[in-house]
Amino acid sequence: MSKRVSKAARSTGNVLAICGGVGGGKLALGLYLTLAPQRLIVAVNTGDDFEHLGLSISPDVDTVLYTLAGVADRERGWGRARETWNFMAALGEMGGETWFQLGDRDLAIHVERTRFLREGKTLSDFIAHAARQLGISARIMPMTDDNVRTFVEIDGGELPFQRYFVERRCAPAVRALRFAGAERARPTTKLLETLADPALRAVVICPSNPYLSIGPFLAMPELRQALAHSRAPVIVVSPIIAGQAVKGPTAKIMTELGIPVTNESIAARYRGLADGLVIDNRDSNEAAGLDLPVLVTRTRMLDLADRKRLAQEVITFADEVAARENAVSSRRHAGGRRA
Amino acid sequence: MSKRVSKAARSTGNVLAICGGVGGGKLALGLYLTLAPQRLIVAVNTGDDFEHLGLSISPDVDTVLYTLAGVADRERGWGRARETWNFMAALGEMGGETWFQLGDRDLAIHVERTRFLREGKTLSDFIAHAARQLGISARIMPMTDDNVRTFVEIDGGELPFQRYFVERRCAPAVRALRFAGAERARPTTKLLETLADPALRAVVICPSNPYLSIGPFLAMPELRQALAHSRAPVIVVSPIIAGQAVKGPTAKIMTELGIPVTNESIAARYRGLADGLVIDNRDSNEAAGLDLPVLVTRTRMLDLADRKRLAQEVITFADEVAARENAVSSRRHAGGRRA
Repeated sequence: MSKRVSKAARSTGNVLAICGGVGGGKLALGLYLTLAPQRLIVAVNTGDDFEHLGLSISPDVDTVLYTLAGVADRERGWGRARETWNFMAALGEMGGETWFQLGDRDLAIHVERTRFLREGKTLSDFIAHAARQLGISARIMPMTDDNVRTFVEIDGGELPFQRYFVERRCAPAVRALRFAGAERARPTTKLLETLADPALRAVVICPSNPYLSIGPFLAMPELRQALAHSRAPVIVVSPIIAGQAVKGPTAKIMTELGIPVTNESIAARYRGLADGLVIDNRDSNEAAGLDLPVLVTRTRMLDLADRKRLAQEVITFADEVAARENAVSSRRHAGGRRA
Repeated sequence: MSKRVSKAARSTGNVLAICGGVGGGKLALGLYLTLAPQRLIVAVNTGDDFEHLGLSISPDVDTVLYTLAGVADRERGWGRARETWNFMAALGEMGGETWFQLGDRDLAIHVERTRFLREGKTLSDFIAHAARQLGISARIMPMTDDNVRTFVEIDGGELPFQRYFVERRCAPAVRALRFAGAERARPTTKLLETLADPALRAVVICPSNPYLSIGPFLAMPELRQALAHSRAPVIVVSPIIAGQAVKGPTAKIMTELGIPVTNESIAARYRGLADGLVIDNRDSNEAAGLDLPVLVTRTRMLDLADRKRLAQEVITFADEVAARENAVSSRRHAGGRRA
């Protein structure tokens, strides 16, 4: 399907960001600070969600909420700034499980979410409430209100995601990923509506881990289809820079799964879905070999200015991709989206 | 029934303390520091327990645990020392209910208790676990593992206990108290066994509020009967000093219920159950009018030395009461326990 985004949509349409936690959250913040805030819609991975200490915990959602609210701890990369840890200390004295760190301030969101869910409300309801309370004017939503849970297959067994990611610090080699519940999970209605919106300006797949963080989205058949059929340009920001992930285990996992740590692999990952790829200028030599429109720029985001600049460039690139597709009404790159 | 406590029991038998929170906890600590710690058994009111923010909260139990563990905040009178309040601050931002203060350290016990109860364990199980973790060698138990919930009848309606006590700061006049579930509640097996133990040295009813804190015990028919039939002397430490309660709303509630704020009223409250009453030396003029053995001493506990001294005096008094009853095999005071 060609990208029939009108000129009007290019300046006033909404932008959908699809992301996981820390890495994706940085670009989501850039978009939030660049666009009119109510033009931004962020759909967040919930495959990392889990029940712990009787609390419903949504690590990626909270990272995005805290980041957009300006209360995230930037040094640590997760949790809240000005955090204290007296709950954990007392929990340790009490013989409780302390492998998953929960700060005193952070606890509030888990207690409130757990209460909401027990009252029969949805995770979407809670996130909308929390975003409002935290003064965020972008719309943030979970990828689904159903249970999707990421499991990591390792030699000799399988680990729930947080046991792998936090308790084992990503040490075991990953043999495969399983997104339990994804086959039957329904993307949130608002996410499907957003993707079907003819005035949607762009879909930005943030530089989150394409396997752990974006994998759960793509494992939902309905989401995959809606993404493929969206009239907006789908722009992927590569999380790979010079054969490394900026942060987190992306490169390690790709290697363990036998996937070369290159932007070509990222392009292949999103083949049939992506209309453009943004790669770092240190990888400019890879651009010619890629079979879709590419923007080469500095993708590393060290400060707020980086986040805003990259966000602006990504949106401009998306508008260009849409304009180009409109002009030539071209089929997309080889293996096109209906293949 | 006469108090046939042997001489051996008088030095080596267990002592059962029955108490609510702050006031009672002070004497429980005195007993803990005076007796060999494993000789002390503390049964705690659970009528104040409630569900809040999805957490199971047992205010009196926790006060006793914290007090005996030496981690209670003595200035504030509840909660933990060296406490921080970042959870509450964040909960407020999140739009959550903040009328009931939960400190960051304190939260650990509520989260762990909630987890225990959800796993199908009893409150007794949890308290034994928490006491062990906190290094307490006395046995602490709830009055029951069943649900007993205190409601306060006020003009025009009824309030759950914590709404009355904390949110309304005991301001509304009390017309009556209701202990929902008490009629059918079973005292914990260990509490009944303790009361039936022929070697039990004494039962001490601590200077807790006789209506709000001890009322829930007495509202359980089986507990009342076990107390009446215990062979150990039952000693009540009056919470009234010179027509006032040392702390809390005891005097206010007595007035609202039309009960004179005197030790005679306290004696009447425990008639048929108590074998001795301990009153403050400022009320020595009341002693002659009381129809049971009385110890007049300083009952105000300002420091640790006060707590230990009073505990020692109460135990000595209990031993004397038991010896006297053994000697004369007398029926107790008018209206005796089988009346």
